[in-house]
Amino acid sequence: MRSSGTVYIVGAGPGNPDLITVRGLTCLREADVVLHDRLIDLHLLEEARPDAEIINAGKEPGDDEDLQQERIQWLMIEKAREGRNVCRLKGGDPFVFGRGGEEAQALAEAGIPFEIVPGVSSAIAVPAYAGIPVTHRDYAHSFMVIAGSRSHDLQSSQWVAASQLVKAGGTLIVLMGLSRIEAIVTQLLWSECDPATPAAR
Amino acid sequence: MRSSGTVYIVGAGPGNPDLITVRGLTCLREADVVLHDRLIDLHLLEEARPDAEIINAGKEPGDDEDLQQERIQWLMIEKAREGRNVCRLKGGDPFVFGRGGEEAQALAEAGIPFEIVPGVSSAIAVPAYAGIPVTHRDYAHSFMVIAGSRSHDLQSSQWVAASQLVKAGGTLIVLMGLSRIEAIVTQLLWSECDPATPAAR
Repeated sequence: MRSSGTVYIVGAGPGNPDLITVRGLTCLREADVVLHDRLIDLHLLEEARPDAEIINAGKEPGDDEDLQQERIQWLMIEKAREGRNVCRLKGGDPFVFGRGGEEAQALAEAGIPFEIVPGVSSAIAVPAYAGIPVTHRDYAHSFMVIAGSRSHDLQSSQWVAASQLVKAGGTLIVLMGLSRIEAIVTQLLWSECDPATPAAR
Repeated sequence: MRSSGTVYIVGAGPGNPDLITVRGLTCLREADVVLHDRLIDLHLLEEARPDAEIINAGKEPGDDEDLQQERIQWLMIEKAREGRNVCRLKGGDPFVFGRGGEEAQALAEAGIPFEIVPGVSSAIAVPAYAGIPVTHRDYAHSFMVIAGSRSHDLQSSQWVAASQLVKAGGTLIVLMGLSRIEAIVTQLLWSECDPATPAAR
């Protein structure tokens, strides 16, 4: 029986191709198979070996996400079982709303060796580039990151914690919330957050 | 008048030297002056130019932190005014409890050009390496990062938000809290967090 390849679950960082880690770039350059998300800078793929198999596993809006996720996990496992090393290249950090946890779990259950290579999360880097440190000794001693996408109820207890944090002066970072920004702001105001709280989008 | 150098505020990542970003490594390799924190892997410094000036700006426990921070900012500005490019190398991400915000502000006020190069934050990477994704579709749709160090009151409203988040099933990450871990756990239990909540240290 051929021995299995290794899967490297790599965070590509927040967009700019040179914000991938040195370790992540090494994994990408050496991989036999690259399985990438939609949300990565495609210039990064030029770093792959010329003979590497490149698979776009990006979910498009409207896809059945769970079905697509299962397909990605199946692909990773199948390619590794062929004895090939796989770079699973994901935007940002694999474990911040990246479903990296599920992918690692699937690999562990299938007995495939894997390595996690964290990436710079856009949750922190995007505010940083906009001049907003998520913590600051004089202003914010904590921050919270929450998914704003449709699958999460704005009345849920995690949003209660979020409004509590805003009132306490922490930094709230909402990812994937642009399409619901009005509902989110309304909910925060309804929870008695100060309308003068500094905000950016 | 000589034109000013540029200061690169670079996150070195969570420890392992190859978890610095490609951009961060380039800045380090090209710098005339490297001003580094205590919490970086010293192997990284071997990447600096042989003729680069290396300054350990690490704060030791017991130092007057504000005085030391002022000294760091003064040094960055002075070196840049000599026309030299400075790599300010910080552990983790410069903007997650790294006082990078204050450093950027000081540079802006002094009229020194600077660039922020984000890093992988230990707040996310350390749990990842321990097999704990900070978010997971089935378990946690939000996470919060809070400083556990002595300067922050456990009765404060940010800790109220933190206990609210734990009760809501989000992931709470406490940095710099090891010396106060018992008080923190007591406070969370007192705030009616479930004693069966999974936890790791």
